Amino acid sequence: MTLKVYADRLSQPSRAVLIFCKINGIDFEEITVEFLKHQQFTPEYKEINPMSQVPAIVDGTFKLFESHAILIYLASAYPGVPDHWYPADVFKRAKIHSVLAWHHSYLRRGATGIVYHSIMAPLHGLTFDPQVPEQARKILPKSLSILEDYWLEGTGPFLFGNSEPSIADLSLVCEIMQLEFLSEKEYREILSPYKKVLKWIEDTKNATGPYFDEVHMALFNVQNEIRERMVKQSISSHKGGSESECIK
Amino acid sequence: MTLKVYADRLSQPSRAVLIFCKINGIDFEEITVEFLKHQQFTPEYKEINPMSQVPAIVDGTFKLFESHAILIYLASAYPGVPDHWYPADVFKRAKIHSVLAWHHSYLRRGATGIVYHSIMAPLHGLTFDPQVPEQARKILPKSLSILEDYWLEGTGPFLFGNSEPSIADLSLVCEIMQLEFLSEKEYREILSPYKKVLKWIEDTKNATGPYFDEVHMALFNVQNEIRERMVKQSISSHKGGSESECIK
Repeated sequence: MTLKVYADRLSQPSRAVLIFCKINGIDFEEITVEFLKHQQFTPEYKEINPMSQVPAIVDGTFKLFESHAILIYLASAYPGVPDHWYPADVFKRAKIHSVLAWHHSYLRRGATGIVYHSIMAPLHGLTFDPQVPEQARKILPKSLSILEDYWLEGTGPFLFGNSEPSIADLSLVCEIMQLEFLSEKEYREILSPYKKVLKWIEDTKNATGPYFDEVHMALFNVQNEIRERMVKQSISSHKGGSESECIK
Repeated sequence: MTLKVYADRLSQPSRAVLIFCKINGIDFEEITVEFLKHQQFTPEYKEINPMSQVPAIVDGTFKLFESHAILIYLASAYPGVPDHWYPADVFKRAKIHSVLAWHHSYLRRGATGIVYHSIMAPLHGLTFDPQVPEQARKILPKSLSILEDYWLEGTGPFLFGNSEPSIADLSLVCEIMQLEFLSEKEYREILSPYKKVLKWIEDTKNATGPYFDEVHMALFNVQNEIRERMVKQSISSHKGGSESECIK
């Protein structure tokens, strides 16, 4: 039975899982769950992921959600995945778990906090919290600084100075790519101080090509449409949440 | 060289790591980093954990932070840790990674959001965000419902219906114990609807005794003092953050 990946390419953790499957030649069926159309709330999907989030997988009778857990599972359960994605070495593996936990408390809160709560959700009638983007704008630069000065220390181009990418590189870079939904000016303002981060994004794209661009195409296809709608609805990414009505 | 565990017993992830070491007979030196005295900000500690959080470990020359990563590392690197703590089985392990990731986005945001940002930080001159407890009070009951109805489904007393605890049981129960800093009335109000959760806390205590109580003694020792100070400073846990001055 083929692995089923329930994903939306507009969701950054979904993209990480899809790219991982493609680059590692894992045979899978992609089932689109469009979160902007609220498809994650159907009773059928809630049977797979009661948290109503993407991605999730069904592998035979085994159901799993949370993208980090999925990436680790795929790297462990599928033969032929090169060791660098999720090294067997206990020390290297521990560092990956450490940065993945950090991802939750810092980078995700920063990037998703801005993009989801001030752009995606208000534009599409999903529940959002207008206070979140304000907090996220403080967390994001702090997170990018930590990436630049700590996680990207070392001689190699990837996290921990490694010479090849791990599931953490893929997961974190996909997170940062979500900032492409901001205006071009704001995207540049946020990222331009972080030269190592910018180089690392490019290195990760190159290491996972052509799948990285293929899977991110969905993001770029709606990027302009979303930016135009934001201008029309006067929901600029600067003043966003605070002027929109919060849906409870 | 003995494993060094940098911890503060008032921090819930610190307690999880300490209890795990004790119950598994891992020889370690406990080095207290009192976060209420800002000891996590010393240059020496920042060399170990640049995020200035507890816990962290130093094992020989290997440094690691983030409690989930530490628990996985200890369960994997130290011989003699029973399999149930972090099973070798790829499916069981995947479920543990899934609930640990969920812990970050739900239960931790709920419990720490209330306790740290409306009690611990305002009382001790640490930076806090007065908006966080408000969000946390929405997330916490949702998290407890998911625990009750989803993660604690099954016949056994532990997560996923297991008959023995894993690192996830320990980590999540220590998180909930942090709610003991709230008033007795509020603690009861929050937890009493969740019968399975209450039983699971007791089962986890019993499965990790006497270390669970020994390590949590620090919490109960300061519980009354903190509750009294909260009353004195009119920072009740109900109105807390919104009336206190936010330290920037």
